[in-house]
Amino acid sequence: MRRQKNKILPDRIYNLRQKFSSCKIDSLIFFNMSNIRYLSGFTGSEGALLINSDKTILLVDGRYVAQAGAETNGLQIKEYKDKIEGIARTIKKLKLKRIGVEANSITLEIYNQLKNSIPGKVLVALNDELKLLRACKDKTEIALMAKAAEMSSSSIRSLIGKLKPGLTEKDVALQLELSALRAGADELAFSTIVAAGENAAFPHAKPTDRKIKKGDFVVIDFGVKYKGYCSDETCTIAFGKLTGRQKNAYQIVKDAHDLALNYVKADVPATCIDQHVRNVFGEKYERYFVHGTGHGVGLEVHEAPRLASNSTDILKTNMVVTVEPGLYIPGFWGIRIEDTVLVKEKSCEKLTKMDKELIIIE
Amino acid sequence: MRRQKNKILPDRIYNLRQKFSSCKIDSLIFFNMSNIRYLSGFTGSEGALLINSDKTILLVDGRYVAQAGAETNGLQIKEYKDKIEGIARTIKKLKLKRIGVEANSITLEIYNQLKNSIPGKVLVALNDELKLLRACKDKTEIALMAKAAEMSSSSIRSLIGKLKPGLTEKDVALQLELSALRAGADELAFSTIVAAGENAAFPHAKPTDRKIKKGDFVVIDFGVKYKGYCSDETCTIAFGKLTGRQKNAYQIVKDAHDLALNYVKADVPATCIDQHVRNVFGEKYERYFVHGTGHGVGLEVHEAPRLASNSTDILKTNMVVTVEPGLYIPGFWGIRIEDTVLVKEKSCEKLTKMDKELIIIE
Repeated sequence: MRRQKNKILPDRIYNLRQKFSSCKIDSLIFFNMSNIRYLSGFTGSEGALLINSDKTILLVDGRYVAQAGAETNGLQIKEYKDKIEGIARTIKKLKLKRIGVEANSITLEIYNQLKNSIPGKVLVALNDELKLLRACKDKTEIALMAKAAEMSSSSIRSLIGKLKPGLTEKDVALQLELSALRAGADELAFSTIVAAGENAAFPHAKPTDRKIKKGDFVVIDFGVKYKGYCSDETCTIAFGKLTGRQKNAYQIVKDAHDLALNYVKADVPATCIDQHVRNVFGEKYERYFVHGTGHGVGLEVHEAPRLASNSTDILKTNMVVTVEPGLYIPGFWGIRIEDTVLVKEKSCEKLTKMDKELIIIE
Repeated sequence: MRRQKNKILPDRIYNLRQKFSSCKIDSLIFFNMSNIRYLSGFTGSEGALLINSDKTILLVDGRYVAQAGAETNGLQIKEYKDKIEGIARTIKKLKLKRIGVEANSITLEIYNQLKNSIPGKVLVALNDELKLLRACKDKTEIALMAKAAEMSSSSIRSLIGKLKPGLTEKDVALQLELSALRAGADELAFSTIVAAGENAAFPHAKPTDRKIKKGDFVVIDFGVKYKGYCSDETCTIAFGKLTGRQKNAYQIVKDAHDLALNYVKADVPATCIDQHVRNVFGEKYERYFVHGTGHGVGLEVHEAPRLASNSTDILKTNMVVTVEPGLYIPGFWGIRIEDTVLVKEKSCEKLTKMDKELIIIE
């Protein structure tokens, strides 16, 4: 496993240390593996990362000692037999007093065990202070996300020529997945959604043996991971003759999607993007839009910020977010149109590359 | 999404209710999605399941209302806009007083938010009481796990005829994955490990562009999901001429694996299985065995029980566990041999089907 070690990581840790004083902590411990990867480069499935004012210590079990050494740089690696005991010993040795923890990742069990194992020390639950840790991407991350998006878009593009009525949802999902894996995607970013006809009214449907028929909308929601980073894109393809209501609904979702993209730029409250979508849907359609407008994407396919009616996030330059309005008519059909975009100072840039004009396959 | 609804679920909930009195609770709330699937049949990615003495309520957001209705039976479905608020309202309406929570799944943030939103109510952190909830499998689950294991074993088997020096680790992983997906696996159970030569010394290596060479051990750790249930199997294949030390080490890992399997049966402490492996390795080799001997498998690829030196679990009939001793010599090579087995009253039954005698490919 010869890996390229990332030179940006010391800056990420430096930036965190700048927050110690306002958070009233002398150290921070991370359990979330995406955060640990982001801060250290370590890609294992288990471990903890302890940062104080002058040291960064990656704690891992025996499986990961060699890997941690190969993947990281400029930090200390400690092996533990028992995770809590290993962390507690390190905290005591460093004489830490107030240790910040990720409230939205640490489980109640780990929190309680850790608290009980370091009497006299204070665990400080941090939430908003860490929420946007990974939200603004750097150049390297943006390049990897563009590559992941290009891979999934080109898999969708090459699929479309082969689509025809009679294929099952599972057939279509499998073709997409094989094509992306062959093209060099590391893995899927999430379970592929291919949902035809009435199944498309389930926003998170799983592929079944249902065959595509004329008159169907087929929702295809697909994403891959490339070197850890995710892509996320949804196309809705029509088959045969559509009803006037279907055509009209597609155009409304497309209008909502396009309008929302027009408003995505730095300093815009995320909730406004959601509101623009709801304005396009209006009273007649909004009740069929059963989810938020979008979410951040990065090492995880769903991460901060959230683009929803109750979001307090503000868009910032170099955030990467989805915009994915949809309409779902239970028992009949569903439509969703989704792009992943890079937030820029005065606009946004589509990372996913499929054109979203209605495609009808006869 | 016409799904077969599972008739066993009411029994699972009945069994849970029997624990209310000893846990001093009048209700239980689940956030862990594998537990929610196990208890309700709902396969979505977000939600909560509230169980009191006479009601079972599945709380979901708008994306999942239709899907929850299609997948579940005999429970009430409630939609929330805000998760915590929705749960708090339900708890108040049902006049619950002491609500059990899964300490090893609930995050500190959710716990604190929920606690603050239901003043006067008590959240009871449950840990050991729920740890083995899904550990003993029923007939339906065992059949699905046998099918998943058969799929991954037959993908490995058909791969072996095609293996030769010069292929990269990534080539091999891709072939395996394509073959399993084509054969009907729903998805991978975990990131495939194919690790050749010195890379095999990393127990959790990721496939790279390294080519297989003569003299290599190649560790292949592979698993798929079938209808939610995971398989997990590792084969170590040799290429060209091995050194005497390599042959000897393979035989020792094989002996440890075989001996451990001989001891797997109901009522045996899991730590004893681990101890048998360590006894075979002895002083000379034990330090190169850098992980525990195994883990439970089910809806998650790693779940209770744990087969490790510090485990307090006792094996029970119908648990499904892995037995996977390995030796890892940093800078040189690694070996792991793993089967997933069903614990029976007086023995165990291999669900994974590859023979583990040494295979040498010239």
